[in-house]
Amino acid sequence: MTKDNSVQVSVLGLGAMGSALAEALVKGGHATTVWNRTPGKADGLVAQGATAADTAGDAVRAGRLVIACLLDHASVHEVLDPLSGELAGRTLINLTTTSPAQSRELAAWAADAGIAYLDGGIMAVPHMIGRPGASILYSGSADVFHQYEPLLGLWGASTYFGEDAGLASLYDLALLAGMYVMFAGFLHGAAMVAPAGVTAREFASMAAPWLTAMTGEFEGFATVVDGGDYTVEGQQSLEFSSLDDILAASSDQGISTEVVDMVQRLIQRQIDAGRGKEGFARIIESIR
Amino acid sequence: MTKDNSVQVSVLGLGAMGSALAEALVKGGHATTVWNRTPGKADGLVAQGATAADTAGDAVRAGRLVIACLLDHASVHEVLDPLSGELAGRTLINLTTTSPAQSRELAAWAADAGIAYLDGGIMAVPHMIGRPGASILYSGSADVFHQYEPLLGLWGASTYFGEDAGLASLYDLALLAGMYVMFAGFLHGAAMVAPAGVTAREFASMAAPWLTAMTGEFEGFATVVDGGDYTVEGQQSLEFSSLDDILAASSDQGISTEVVDMVQRLIQRQIDAGRGKEGFARIIESIR
Ligand SMILES: NC(=O)c1ccc[n+]([C@@H]2O[C@H](COP(=O)([O-])OP(=O)(O)OC[C@H]3O[C@@H](n4cnc5c(N)ncnc54)[C@H](OP(=O)(O)O)[C@@H]3O)[C@@H](O)[C@H]2O)c1
Ligand SMILES: NC(=O)c1ccc[n+]([C@@H]2O[C@H](COP(=O)([O-])OP(=O)(O)OC[C@H]3O[C@@H](n4cnc5c(N)ncnc54)[C@H](OP(=O)(O)O)[C@@H]3O)[C@@H](O)[C@H]2O)c1
Repeated sequence: MTKDNSVQVSVLGLGAMGSALAEALVKGGHATTVWNRTPGKADGLVAQGATAADTAGDAVRAGRLVIACLLDHASVHEVLDPLSGELAGRTLINLTTTSPAQSRELAAWAADAGIAYLDGGIMAVPHMIGRPGASILYSGSADVFHQYEPLLGLWGASTYFGEDAGLASLYDLALLAGMYVMFAGFLHGAAMVAPAGVTAREFASMAAPWLTAMTGEFEGFATVVDGGDYTVEGQQSLEFSSLDDILAASSDQGISTEVVDMVQRLIQRQIDAGRGKEGFARIIESIR
Repeated sequence: MTKDNSVQVSVLGLGAMGSALAEALVKGGHATTVWNRTPGKADGLVAQGATAADTAGDAVRAGRLVIACLLDHASVHEVLDPLSGELAGRTLINLTTTSPAQSRELAAWAADAGIAYLDGGIMAVPHMIGRPGASILYSGSADVFHQYEPLLGLWGASTYFGEDAGLASLYDLALLAGMYVMFAGFLHGAAMVAPAGVTAREFASMAAPWLTAMTGEFEGFATVVDGGDYTVEGQQSLEFSSLDDILAASSDQGISTEVVDMVQRLIQRQIDAGRGKEGFARIIESIR
C-alpha cells in the first residue's frame, strides 16, 4: 500500500457485479485499473476515475492486488492461466462464484504459481455492494484477508472462515440454497393468494416481515440439531407440523403443490420412522 | 365495553396459544374468563386475575366477546354447536387455525345463529404474543374488527383483509407455506456445511441475516409478477439461476438434493418452455 492507504488494485471482469465492485474501489479512493473482455464496459468507471487496461495482462501488471469477478471457474482459468508468471508475487482475490472443489483447485494452482490467494463468495446483488446488508465470505490466505480487510470492507461485511479455500464457496452455496428455496416458498404463497385477488406486491408486504421474523426460529432449530436430541421440550412436533391444510388450500386454489410437497415428504419420512413426536428440526435427518 | 374500556372477554381453549392470548388480555386489564376442556390449565391465569369457568357455556355467558383457540375446525364445532343459542347476540373471534373453506363455513354458521363473526390467523408462536414481531390476520366482520381493534392490539400487529371470512386463513396458510419451505431451505444449508465442521448454530448466525436481507428481493419479484412481463431489464434470468453448483456441492457433501431439486424443476420447466432469458420470478408460472 502507498502512504495514503490507496491500493494499486485491478479488477478483471466488468459484468454487473465486477462493475459494482470496481465502482466501490474507485469511490473508496483506490488506484483502480479495470479490464473487461468485451470493450466498452469500462467507460462509466473511467469517468469516475478508474484506468482502463487494454488487456488482462496490462491490468495484472498495474495491480499489487488483482480482483477476478468473471462468469465462472472456466473463464477464470481462461483469463489467468496465460498470466501466471505476471501474477507470481502478487495477490489474487477471486470473487467469481465457484464450487468448493473449484475454489480448492484454484488455490492449489495459485500456490504452485507463487500467487497469494483468497477466495470469496458474494452474498449480495450488485446494487447492494457498499450498502448495508451486503456480505462477502472469504477463505484461503489469512494474511491476504487481514492485509486487505479495510479495502474489502468497502463492499460489505466481510467474514473469514479459514485457510481451506473451499469453505467460503461451500458457505456461499449453502446460503444460496436457502435463498432459492425461500424464493420458491414466497412465490408459492403469492400463487396461493392470487386467485383471491391479492396482488403479489400486497403479499410481499406481509411475507417479507413475516419470514424475517421467522428467521428468529433458526437459532432454536440449530441448538437442537447441534445437541442431537430432537425430543427437547417446547419444540413444535413433526406431527403438529401437518401441511395438509396448506396443501388442501393450494389445491383448492388450483395451483401445483410440489413446492410444499417437498417439505411434507421430509416430515413424513421422520413420522414413518416413528419420530412424529420429536421436533420439527428433525427434518434435517431426512436430508442428510 | 365498560367505561374504563375493559371488555368482558372469554377465552375457550387454554393450550399453548390460548393461554398466551388469555394472559395478554388479563395483563391488558380486561375482565377475562377462561375455559379449557381438560381442567387445571386455568390455574396460572387465575393467579394473574382471570376467572375460571367450569363449562364452555358458563364461559360464553360471562363474555360479550368470545375468543376460540382450539385445536382445529372440528373441535370448534364440537364446543360451539351446543352453545349457538347463548352465542346469539354476542361476538365470536375464532383464532383456531382453519382452512379458508372451513372459515367460510363457520362464518355462515355464525350468521345463521345471529353471531357477529371475525376469523383470525395467528402468525406467531405463543411466546411472541404481545411482543414485537407477532402478527395476526383477520377477515370477516369489519364492525367487529374495528370495535375491538385496541384489544386485538394487545396480541400483536393486526391486519384486516375484508368481509370474506376465508381471506385471513388463506393468507395465513400462504405465509405458513413460505415459512415451512424457508425452514427446509435453512436446514438443507445447515446439512451442506455440517460435514465441513460448521455447527448449525454458526450457520444460523449467517443464514438469519442473509435470508432477512434477501426478503428485500420479494418486492421486485412481485412487481414483475403483477406486471405480467418477465422480460423487464435488470432481473436475474432463469438461465443464470443455475442450481447446478449447489446440487453438485450437496452431492459432494453426501446429502440429499431433493429440497433444491424442487426449485431446479420449477426453473427447468420455464427454460424448457423457451423462457430461459426471462426473470427468475417466472417460476411462479411453473406453480400456477
Ligand atoms: N449478479 C449477482 O447478483 C451476483 C451475486 C453474487 C455473485 N455473483 C457472481 O459474480 C460473477 C460475475 O457475475 P455478474 O453478475 O457480473 O455476471 P455478468 O454480468 O454476466 O458478467 C460476466 C462477466 O464475465 C465475463 N466473462 C464471461 N466469460 C468470460 C471469458 N471466457 N473470458 C473473459 N471474460 C469472461 C464477461 O465479459 P463480457 O462482457 O466480455 O461477456 C463479464 O464481464 C459470477 O460468478 C456470479 O455468480 C453475481
Ligand atoms: N402454537 C403455535 O405456535 C400456534 C401458532 C399459530 C396458530 N396456532 C393455532 O392455535 C390453535 C391452538 O394451538 P395450541 O398451540 O394452543 O395447541 P395445543 O397446545 O395443542 O392446545 C389445543 C387446545 O385445544 C383443545 N381441544 C382440542 N380438542 C378439543 C375438543 N374436541 N374439545 C375441546 N377442546 C379441545 C385442547 O384442550 P385439552 O387441554 O382438553 O386437550 C387445548 O386447549 C391451533 O388451531 C393452532 O393451529 C398455534
